[in-house]
Amino acid sequence: MKDALRAQAADLFDRLARLGHDGVGITRDSYGAGETAALTLLRQEAEAHGLRSSIDAAGNLMIDAPDYAGGPATWIGSHLDSVPQGGNFDGAAGIIAGLLCLIRGQQEGGKNGARPVRVAALRGEESAWYGKAYIGSSALLGKLEADDLASRRRDGSGSLADGLAAAGADLERIRAGQPLINKGDIAAYLELHIEQGPVMVARKFPTAVVTGIRGNIRHGRILCRGEAGHSGAVPRWLRHDAVFATAELISRLDEHWQALLQRGLDLVITTGIIGTPAEEHAISRIPGLVGFSFEVRSQSHDTLEAFYHLMQTEAAAIGRARGVSFEFDRRIYSAPARMNEAWVERLLGLSHQLGLPTETIPSGAGHDAAVFANAGIPAGMIFVRNANGSHNPQEAMDLDDFIAGTDLLYHAVTATP
Amino acid sequence: MKDALRAQAADLFDRLARLGHDGVGITRDSYGAGETAALTLLRQEAEAHGLRSSIDAAGNLMIDAPDYAGGPATWIGSHLDSVPQGGNFDGAAGIIAGLLCLIRGQQEGGKNGARPVRVAALRGEESAWYGKAYIGSSALLGKLEADDLASRRRDGSGSLADGLAAAGADLERIRAGQPLINKGDIAAYLELHIEQGPVMVARKFPTAVVTGIRGNIRHGRILCRGEAGHSGAVPRWLRHDAVFATAELISRLDEHWQALLQRGLDLVITTGIIGTPAEEHAISRIPGLVGFSFEVRSQSHDTLEAFYHLMQTEAAAIGRARGVSFEFDRRIYSAPARMNEAWVERLLGLSHQLGLPTETIPSGAGHDAAVFANAGIPAGMIFVRNANGSHNPQEAMDLDDFIAGTDLLYHAVTATP
Repeated sequence: MKDALRAQAADLFDRLARLGHDGVGITRDSYGAGETAALTLLRQEAEAHGLRSSIDAAGNLMIDAPDYAGGPATWIGSHLDSVPQGGNFDGAAGIIAGLLCLIRGQQEGGKNGARPVRVAALRGEESAWYGKAYIGSSALLGKLEADDLASRRRDGSGSLADGLAAAGADLERIRAGQPLINKGDIAAYLELHIEQGPVMVARKFPTAVVTGIRGNIRHGRILCRGEAGHSGAVPRWLRHDAVFATAELISRLDEHWQALLQRGLDLVITTGIIGTPAEEHAISRIPGLVGFSFEVRSQSHDTLEAFYHLMQTEAAAIGRARGVSFEFDRRIYSAPARMNEAWVERLLGLSHQLGLPTETIPSGAGHDAAVFANAGIPAGMIFVRNANGSHNPQEAMDLDDFIAGTDLLYHAVTATP
Repeated sequence: MKDALRAQAADLFDRLARLGHDGVGITRDSYGAGETAALTLLRQEAEAHGLRSSIDAAGNLMIDAPDYAGGPATWIGSHLDSVPQGGNFDGAAGIIAGLLCLIRGQQEGGKNGARPVRVAALRGEESAWYGKAYIGSSALLGKLEADDLASRRRDGSGSLADGLAAAGADLERIRAGQPLINKGDIAAYLELHIEQGPVMVARKFPTAVVTGIRGNIRHGRILCRGEAGHSGAVPRWLRHDAVFATAELISRLDEHWQALLQRGLDLVITTGIIGTPAEEHAISRIPGLVGFSFEVRSQSHDTLEAFYHLMQTEAAAIGRARGVSFEFDRRIYSAPARMNEAWVERLLGLSHQLGLPTETIPSGAGHDAAVFANAGIPAGMIFVRNANGSHNPQEAMDLDDFIAGTDLLYHAVTATP
């Protein structure tokens, strides 16, 4: 049985990788062609195994056993999309795990008393494409805002509303801000995901149970505006150099980060994007404009807000000192989330029974499970070991670890709660 | 007479501006279509006034009186090209000034004993296009190196050798590294140029005499290589963040700069270009790669070399501390230059006679005059007041100031030396 599932998994990961290969890594754009191609492949695979599939009013793919007649179900979900030039396992692993659980359930004839299982292949979890994360799950639960819908795609080619419409979503219902489903029908939301950091490799855990998910505050684009000029001709005291100002801001925030970590706070800050405008590039031009992104992550809402305030205070001080200004685009907030304690205990108990580590781990990265948890739905997550980090083409998940995690997930959804 | 010259100048600047307008500013690409268009316009204008024109073996435009029979001449030169989205006066002012001197000389029938005047409209002075500055004057004087010829155009579309060939230059002679002209025939090299900084506006000088020109050391592209990863999942102590490392390097250099200025050194540092690779952009990606430019300018060769060494030492230290590496492309050196003392005195004396300020000023920016001076040719420069700096579309030179500077230049070339 496990050998057959392993072969099936290997084949599916392989086909998804070929479909999403962009020459460097894997690209499955949120509410775009790459994500739709992956959705179509998984849908065909599900139907080839006699499962039923449907697209919900947010464009997400739902896969059910043929005898599912509606009503409360245990959901297994994760996301279809990837960052640009990302890896093959981030998101896809959780959906393939769910699909394998459904297939195995069909083969084993189901367990008495266990709830039906529904696999949710969610769209648009990665913020890389529209600035907003968790799009499919937020739309599903009535949490997408008008500002989110107006967000532009990273290449400027359209709005999120356009992307949703192209995926067949019901924009009117999404705009109304009401859940697109009876929340009571989601008895629980479980998600298997690769760990995106180095901890499980270092500590030799093939699987682990997640306790909570960091929230974040983000700006996709902060503009530092100074004054362009000839580099040789403007003395330092008359300069309004946008690059020096931005470098000072980033360096100061890095120093604060170091100090706050020493005080034991949970905190991560990142500027993943920085750039002077290409059309004005000259070595001998004092840069008058720099754009950059900002992100702060923490498991604590208070830490998020305090650091965000510190960033704004520093930007204002540097702006005054250097005669530059910092302009902020829309602030995007994703709340931290706690996983359901009963589910954490259940997953740890099953891990023990299956001979897997009974270890817990907080998630530094965000996941759709946070949206379900914050909507009051009991949520649980299983992490699977993965080398070389994530959001890059070198993601490396061992298939044995994946099968162990999928087995844990299968037992979790088939055990009578 | 002055009114007619003023009207001619206004008309020429206007036609050049219309020709070079790119929608935002002025773009006349070095050894490219924009520069060639400006060259053609000036050539036609010269010939319409009965002057003779020719293209030298480096593609530069030479304009002479019809009776010039070769031999030692006083050169008036400046450059045809601009930075991308730059201004209309940087370079062009000096050529138009020279042209007006030749036209006025024709009208006034020449002065007894004065040397012939040749106007050199030089190509490729701006480093923005091929990384290398002073291309036309360096080729002319046998100072272009094989590495320069191999430099790629900023858009990657070809090498400098390709650009030179397209402009009709004699690549074989340029490669040989010999002057393309008998240096003895350049009795002196005079250049009128807008000031590119704020000093003359602040001090109310319509004209000033230049004493020396800063040199510089540059890298067009330094790569900081760290390790990409998911921003939420890699703790600070395991990060190899290329943006944090580069921000720290720039901030440290800025601090050194401040300290060295307080010690009275002549020093300017600039990072005009910075950017993470667009194809990997994600807010939640730890940046694994950043590219940036570096430039240090000084009137002192020793200060240039000392600061350059400091920059490399800091980069190595930050690299070790953060587990990133800094990779440097070709180092480009432009030597500082002193203007000829006799010419400085002569220009100051004439300024006094003409009721202009007898003020000297060092040039923070580089000019072709530095190449002539460092080749042993007596060189002198006149600066004309200009507001809003340079290398931007807001350059603003008052035409009255320009005519005053041109008048000074005319007297300088017609006075018996």
